[in-house]
Amino acid sequence: MQALGRQVLVEYYDCDQDVINDVAQIESILLEGTRKSRASIISHNFHKFSPHGVSGTVVIAESHIAIHTWPEYGYAAVDIFTCGETIDPWIIQEHLKDCFNSKNVSSMEMKRGMFKVEEGQELLFKPKDAPNFSMSN
Amino acid sequence: MQALGRQVLVEYYDCDQDVINDVAQIESILLEGTRKSRASIISHNFHKFSPHGVSGTVVIAESHIAIHTWPEYGYAAVDIFTCGETIDPWIIQEHLKDCFNSKNVSSMEMKRGMFKVEEGQELLFKPKDAPNFSMSN
Repeated sequence: MQALGRQVLVEYYDCDQDVINDVAQIESILLEGTRKSRASIISHNFHKFSPHGVSGTVVIAESHIAIHTWPEYGYAAVDIFTCGETIDPWIIQEHLKDCFNSKNVSSMEMKRGMFKVEEGQELLFKPKDAPNFSMSN
Repeated sequence: MQALGRQVLVEYYDCDQDVINDVAQIESILLEGTRKSRASIISHNFHKFSPHGVSGTVVIAESHIAIHTWPEYGYAAVDIFTCGETIDPWIIQEHLKDCFNSKNVSSMEMKRGMFKVEEGQELLFKPKDAPNFSMSN
């Protein structure tokens, strides 16, 4: 069995409440972490809620990153969904941990899209197998 | 222990390959499912890849929905992350199953943001507890 994607689900507890309530900082931190991992950013959207909390998503060529924060609880939920072998979701996980100053992190990695493949064969990941990888919109 | 959010991770196998390769259809299906669940749509982004595949995210007031499709394998990965008691992620899950004509669906629901609360008390979800819930950007 081989998987098309991997997804890291992260619970960041005991974060710096000011940082995770600041939409500009969160956007900057997520985009920086994404670049560090060498993922290709396609689009991103971040929103600040009233009275507090931020939600955002970054669509990458290799899937996506999503965040939701509850500053009142010092908590941020993050998903890092990647495919292909060229990028490492744990680089993003670590970057966010440092920037949020989270004192209590719980992470889990899951495989997504499991397929049985013949011995010696490989599942084809789009970014890996399409050197001319491009978007039509 | 109570959770701030719930997340349904869905693996849709054996889907209609034409549908899950059509960015316009996917956008329409996801937005329709989101409305059916009574979630409040804040923003959405869908992208078509070459030669095939679609990625997209819908940010909702109650968190997000994300999709990645591999039409060549008849497979779509979907995450439905919600908070609050007013919307049901499984309405979206079911709607997508029908529209993608998926013959093999595997779903898992997880709790996100677990906190210990005193007996008789409740974790406060933003959309539920902020009748004047609003966005600042």
